[in-house]
Amino acid sequence: MARLEVPVQLRWSDMDAYAHVNNVEMLRLLEEARIEAFWRHPEAQDGTRPDATWPTAVLDAGPGAQTSTLVARQEIEYLVPLGYRRSPVVVEMWLGHLGGASLDVCYEVRDRPAADPTSTVYARATTTLVLVDSATGRPRRLGDVERAAWQKYVEAPVRHRRRPEA
Amino acid sequence: MARLEVPVQLRWSDMDAYAHVNNVEMLRLLEEARIEAFWRHPEAQDGTRPDATWPTAVLDAGPGAQTSTLVARQEIEYLVPLGYRRSPVVVEMWLGHLGGASLDVCYEVRDRPAADPTSTVYARATTTLVLVDSATGRPRRLGDVERAAWQKYVEAPVRHRRRPEA
Amino acid sequence: MARLEVPVQLRWSDMDAYAHVNNVEMLRLLEEARIEAFWRHPEAQDGTRPDATWPTAVLDAGPGAQTSTLVARQEIEYLVPLGYRRSPVVVEMWLGHLGGASLDVCYEVRDRPAADPTSTVYARATTTLVLVDSATGRPRRLGDVERAAWQKYVEAPVRHRRRPEA
Amino acid sequence: MARLEVPVQLRWSDMDAYAHVNNVEMLRLLEEARIEAFWRHPEAQDGTRPDATWPTAVLDAGPGAQTSTLVARQEIEYLVPLGYRRSPVVVEMWLGHLGGASLDVCYEVRDRPAADPTSTVYARATTTLVLVDSATGRPRRLGDVERAAWQKYVEAPVRHRRRPEA
Repeated sequence: MARLEVPVQLRWSDMDAYAHVNNVEMLRLLEEARIEAFWRHPEAQDGTRPDATWPTAVLDAGPGAQTSTLVARQEIEYLVPLGYRRSPVVVEMWLGHLGGASLDVCYEVRDRPAADPTSTVYARATTTLVLVDSATGRPRRLGDVERAAWQKYVEAPVRHRRRPEA
Repeated sequence: MARLEVPVQLRWSDMDAYAHVNNVEMLRLLEEARIEAFWRHPEAQDGTRPDATWPTAVLDAGPGAQTSTLVARQEIEYLVPLGYRRSPVVVEMWLGHLGGASLDVCYEVRDRPAADPTSTVYARATTTLVLVDSATGRPRRLGDVERAAWQKYVEAPVRHRRRPEA
Repeated sequence: MARLEVPVQLRWSDMDAYAHVNNVEMLRLLEEARIEAFWRHPEAQDGTRPDATWPTAVLDAGPGAQTSTLVARQEIEYLVPLGYRRSPVVVEMWLGHLGGASLDVCYEVRDRPAADPTSTVYARATTTLVLVDSATGRPRRLGDVERAAWQKYVEAPVRHRRRPEA
Repeated sequence: MARLEVPVQLRWSDMDAYAHVNNVEMLRLLEEARIEAFWRHPEAQDGTRPDATWPTAVLDAGPGAQTSTLVARQEIEYLVPLGYRRSPVVVEMWLGHLGGASLDVCYEVRDRPAADPTSTVYARATTTLVLVDSATGRPRRLGDVERAAWQKYVEAPVRHRRRPEA
């Protein structure tokens, strides 16, 4: 059991007229963290970005890649308004579920690593991703490399407390 | 029982590198529909926008307004990829719940009004909004004008089918 | 000599933390006006958008289109801060230059049509577009249909007054 | 004579449907570089971001700050399409002009520092900033601290080669 901790730099434009990070932009931060952690970024190999070696980064993201990812569902709770800061926020990620052709990515957005007991949680979220074959446009099953890379990050899904009764 | 149908114009930049409306931008479209339908827009009175008379538009949005709205939670399911189009999409909205200081806004994003049986649903979503007193930063209760304006749009909440077990 | 007047709807998210339309977003509004006026939008033919018949809309924008447009240069002056409003702004456009493979689009962003002498100009701008053959990635010359559609919108380029000495 | 080199992380959403960094988003990258280099970011002092010590970062950016900056003018040339990459781009900045109440910020966006002769320039740009007193909304003169911090970064302005005749 392990978690991924991805620092994500805010942009000044993430704030809206209320001078806090906009609720929609918060999902943009999650998208950035997800891409950083799950997609392979080839330039890491040529030495310009030696820090890019996420063990989970096994999806091919280059032009003409064989897989695209489709976001099927998202759920997010905003716990504390996130003000502007230059220090990156920390997006902690784990996998709430590994399915046949899909996975649930769980997140907590914090001001500092979760190991710090004084850290604040700004938001909790879940994204369901479906892997799609770029050529056919149809879902395709998780491969062995993917499952091997991702398995150890599987733990209980995030608990969404404010969920209304269905 | 009634629904609000708000046309929202896509922007070309709503598309991402997959050439479909990006999953995060879809929530931007919901934000636009919500602001159109719930906030009062004073310029409507001076004749420049006679079509802005939503019966539900009773929140004061001007500078120095007494109320700000806080998004506490969102849930969205993406059913069909939304390609680029110049015709506005139709965001159908209703209220899944009117609480003491909060409300649940439910949405369906369609290519044409729901009355047209051939219309396609691209996404279903729910947003929980909390009304906040701008001066104190604390939640404040829905007022009589708001409740009167919004009551008839209350119906059963959107059913999110893909929700994982908690 | 004629000008194009394209209404563009602001989004609430166009505002930044200063509660005015952000300087970068202003160029987004220009992009929207340009796409509306110059690109052909096929859904106009199926009756869903009868108002889309710009005489200048002759570039093919569909998937697999033979032409893409490359923005080579932009220049913009911000004259008056643009506050939030629900009434669309009016982007007045004309062509400052029709070249062999490029054109200069000139803009004035106003609160109401230029014919109204009380209208306010928020920004003046120029974009140089290069037409590119999608298959080869190389510039291609303006065709007869394009030149015929665009010729009558050519007039003197916008005067940028604050341009520093080069 | 010196230049500032600010690394700016792309976001996947900076790409548009052409799968290159969108022309408008390029100005967003410049905004980020400018804010990083010119605004004081107080959290740097509490140890969370010791690397934030730009000598030029003397504008106060906190809530209730006495100065806001107004973008009066921008000019940008796009030289080479910028594809997606996880390694930050390098925004090289200098000051083309220090005026009484304004300054011209010049930029080159590169894939690696300018000292590397194999680096590619994607864009060249200039922004004219006006310092505004937040209380009065009127321009205010550059102060001694600002002038002292910024003076050594003044050099010849960027040469915009494609500028049309006025």
